[in-house]
Amino acid sequence: AMAGRAELEAAVREQGVRKLKADKAPQHQISEELAKLLELKAQLGTNDGKPQFVLKTPKGTRDYNPKQMAIREKVFSTIINCFKRHGAETIDTPVFELKETLTGKYGEDSKLIYDLKDQGGELLSLRYGLTVPFARYLAMNKITNIKRYHIAKVYRRDNPAMTQGRYREFYQCDFDIAGQYDPMIPDAECLKIVHEILSELQLGEFLIKVNDRRVLDGMFEVCGVPADKFRTICSAVDKMDKMPWEDVKNEMVSEKGLAPETADKIGEYVQLNGRSELIDKLVQDAKLSQNKVAMEGLNDMKQLFVYLTLYGVEEKVLFDLSLARGLDYYTGVIYEVVLTQSQAATQTQQNEHSEQVSIGSVAAGGRYDGLVGMFDPKGRKVPCVGVSIGIERIFSIMEQRLEASDEKIRTTETQVLVATAQKNLLEERMKLVAELWKSGIKAEITYKKNPKLLNQLQYCEETGIPLVAIIGEQELKDGVVKLRVVSTREEVDVARENLIEEIEKRTCQS
Amino acid sequence: AMAGRAELEAAVREQGVRKLKADKAPQHQISEELAKLLELKAQLGTNDGKPQFVLKTPKGTRDYNPKQMAIREKVFSTIINCFKRHGAETIDTPVFELKETLTGKYGEDSKLIYDLKDQGGELLSLRYGLTVPFARYLAMNKITNIKRYHIAKVYRRDNPAMTQGRYREFYQCDFDIAGQYDPMIPDAECLKIVHEILSELQLGEFLIKVNDRRVLDGMFEVCGVPADKFRTICSAVDKMDKMPWEDVKNEMVSEKGLAPETADKIGEYVQLNGRSELIDKLVQDAKLSQNKVAMEGLNDMKQLFVYLTLYGVEEKVLFDLSLARGLDYYTGVIYEVVLTQSQAATQTQQNEHSEQVSIGSVAAGGRYDGLVGMFDPKGRKVPCVGVSIGIERIFSIMEQRLEASDEKIRTTETQVLVATAQKNLLEERMKLVAELWKSGIKAEITYKKNPKLLNQLQYCEETGIPLVAIIGEQELKDGVVKLRVVSTREEVDVARENLIEEIEKRTCQS
Repeated sequence: AMAGRAELEAAVREQGVRKLKADKAPQHQISEELAKLLELKAQLGTNDGKPQFVLKTPKGTRDYNPKQMAIREKVFSTIINCFKRHGAETIDTPVFELKETLTGKYGEDSKLIYDLKDQGGELLSLRYGLTVPFARYLAMNKITNIKRYHIAKVYRRDNPAMTQGRYREFYQCDFDIAGQYDPMIPDAECLKIVHEILSELQLGEFLIKVNDRRVLDGMFEVCGVPADKFRTICSAVDKMDKMPWEDVKNEMVSEKGLAPETADKIGEYVQLNGRSELIDKLVQDAKLSQNKVAMEGLNDMKQLFVYLTLYGVEEKVLFDLSLARGLDYYTGVIYEVVLTQSQAATQTQQNEHSEQVSIGSVAAGGRYDGLVGMFDPKGRKVPCVGVSIGIERIFSIMEQRLEASDEKIRTTETQVLVATAQKNLLEERMKLVAELWKSGIKAEITYKKNPKLLNQLQYCEETGIPLVAIIGEQELKDGVVKLRVVSTREEVDVARENLIEEIEKRTCQS
Repeated sequence: AMAGRAELEAAVREQGVRKLKADKAPQHQISEELAKLLELKAQLGTNDGKPQFVLKTPKGTRDYNPKQMAIREKVFSTIINCFKRHGAETIDTPVFELKETLTGKYGEDSKLIYDLKDQGGELLSLRYGLTVPFARYLAMNKITNIKRYHIAKVYRRDNPAMTQGRYREFYQCDFDIAGQYDPMIPDAECLKIVHEILSELQLGEFLIKVNDRRVLDGMFEVCGVPADKFRTICSAVDKMDKMPWEDVKNEMVSEKGLAPETADKIGEYVQLNGRSELIDKLVQDAKLSQNKVAMEGLNDMKQLFVYLTLYGVEEKVLFDLSLARGLDYYTGVIYEVVLTQSQAATQTQQNEHSEQVSIGSVAAGGRYDGLVGMFDPKGRKVPCVGVSIGIERIFSIMEQRLEASDEKIRTTETQVLVATAQKNLLEERMKLVAELWKSGIKAEITYKKNPKLLNQLQYCEETGIPLVAIIGEQELKDGVVKLRVVSTREEVDVARENLIEEIEKRTCQS
């Protein structure tokens, strides 16, 4: 009963927190929350003296079952192969950092950081992403050049939407290039890498949106945004993929105190997108061309498109002035990759022209030349550029696809089950399976003294084991093993000394 | 300065906590702690207006650099291959669980659990091990049969000893078999697996100590330990590998209130160890033979040794009555694997007989038939047995060994660097490297517009890249590439259309 009460307390606390925010929530939402509370209370009412546990993972998290793990490992292997093809090393960092390491790096998103309880000692927080720990690692070890990948879980106390692959604990696959190099060469390789990975995973059409923080800052300046409002206005622009311009403008004016005419000027720019021709147009823009910072960004953008063309990926790249990215630490080029569907495929009554429509972000990144310097006692800078692949949405898509298909996925690699139809042969099965293990054959026995043959065969069917090595008194006397092919039910006697070779020959594809 | 002050506060808090415990600490230790505090204060004194960050990972944690990652991946691959050879699937669970999921599973070690801060919502804790999350997973998904492995980090607020591989964040590699099977068949396979892994990793001599909780409980009963003291006395016995019997006895009597005669009786048993002959002796022991629970344990132990002999591993296994294991949830056989060194090799003046001496625990586990039932609303049991491999100490040993040797370890797999000796060929290098990537060749360029050939060759030497594909105006005109072997400095002209084949031929081992 103790556990049940503890759970109720936790639930009430959570509902309570939601209710505190309810002043802004519509009435039906409040009723919904109330219903959940009553349900929890009712559950506790049925408590008949037995301890009641809430059998769940924490909100916004999930377990991976063996099938999901098989998909995850396939996706990871594609991504890691690509990173290694581009010469990357890998590192790992702790799941938590000193709280102050994360402070001041995430802007408005800082409220989503998970803190650990103060149990004496240092104040700690779970990592929010892999970029800040990477910068801390570089500064701490005085590393000025590295090309590394890091695949690990990160933590955000965000509102989860798990059906869309948005979790509070989720994997990031980061690739970054640190070092003082000539402009846009590493930047172009990051985009090349994303292009390779998304093509190999065959997730369908995608679009790489690019922009530059310097173009945004220059634009804010020429529009008349005060310098101390650049980052908060940037956060507002970042919402343009989720809400119409009118709402973004409203946030800028009502919440962030921008003059309506300034917002309108921004609105003219941020609704532009295109390729080289847009860069050329902006370079000649009466106001932007007078802004040094904006011109630096535009010139680099022009160079980037030259390199992307050499790498054969420029077709998928779009220069989009509404792309802003929420994080504080970007200083140059920024990008975000979205999966798209041509409107024609999901045709609705209202809309008939075939336009690419975003169905979700799968990767993002950019240049952050100042972050390492924030950790260096002498402020020494290490320029960095990188990309982070958001694996969870990719998993979701692959899972849904697998469920829709009839394809069966194996979760083990066992080549052969050592079985018998007779009693009292456990010790003989053990001896044989140990022989197979010794030769590197992946083999199993069932853990019963006298299992039925039918059950042993069924186990093979269920788990996809292709071969059964059957022994009985006769086989032991003759020095043979009956090798059965599960799919065809064909059986052959194989001399015991040839068994390993025979198994390897028949399962060489795996 | 803010950050510096926050750090000082954290440090003072930590030192403060230690000082609270100082009433039992010797005087010199208190002075040491005080010195550390003063040092911290002095550091803050040098603050000259710049923000001061403490560049470190949290206490008891570490980063893995690329070299350490290469070692880690090699060890993981050996272990995973073994798990797969035995037909295991894999799962993953979140890094944190609901706090109540962990409550009441770890006995006296519960104080070492990391809690998350209450930021509204559920109360969460970092996982302390992988076994409890596994049991929660089985109950939640109503799984009654599975053979799975799980490799992931776990968290303990223990006193770290990092040079010995004892961290607050560390990897566990767990293999468990869940299901209602005939006695000791899965248990024997767990020990077989540990034996295979430690043999393959070539860490030197090792010893697998086994015991059974039922033998311990039966022994406590016949010695006169009150039932409610079984677990706490068990914890005391568990310390026998770290301190002499006299100190353990003292803990039992002074701290845990056991009668001295009872402790002495326990002392007679727990100093015994041996193999089948010890089991036979205990089965005939006047007191134990009258105890049902102890006899169940001893009969299973006898059966276990039969199976271990069939698997060819009994030589490394020792039945040791002092092995107790700290965790609450074990119900049957328990084991711990220690690396050993023959005393002869580390001969001291006082001791000359060649005896195996433990130099550290690398794996442990046992049977826990009640744990899943603790999570099931109807208390349905799923018997489980498993083993956990403590990877960090293994990493430490491998790292030290690598440092002592002259062996160079590569941290990338790059096959070829695309290079040039001439100016203005960046775009040609980009085109060629993109061709290579397209064919799956692992290739790099340096990120400079006009790099020096010497610097490019040096990069290959440093990172172990075996080949350089050199282009210049002449090569481009002739449609060839100069392929240079870094180790021999040999250079050959290769027709561009044959380049990929030539690179693959020359790097086929990697």
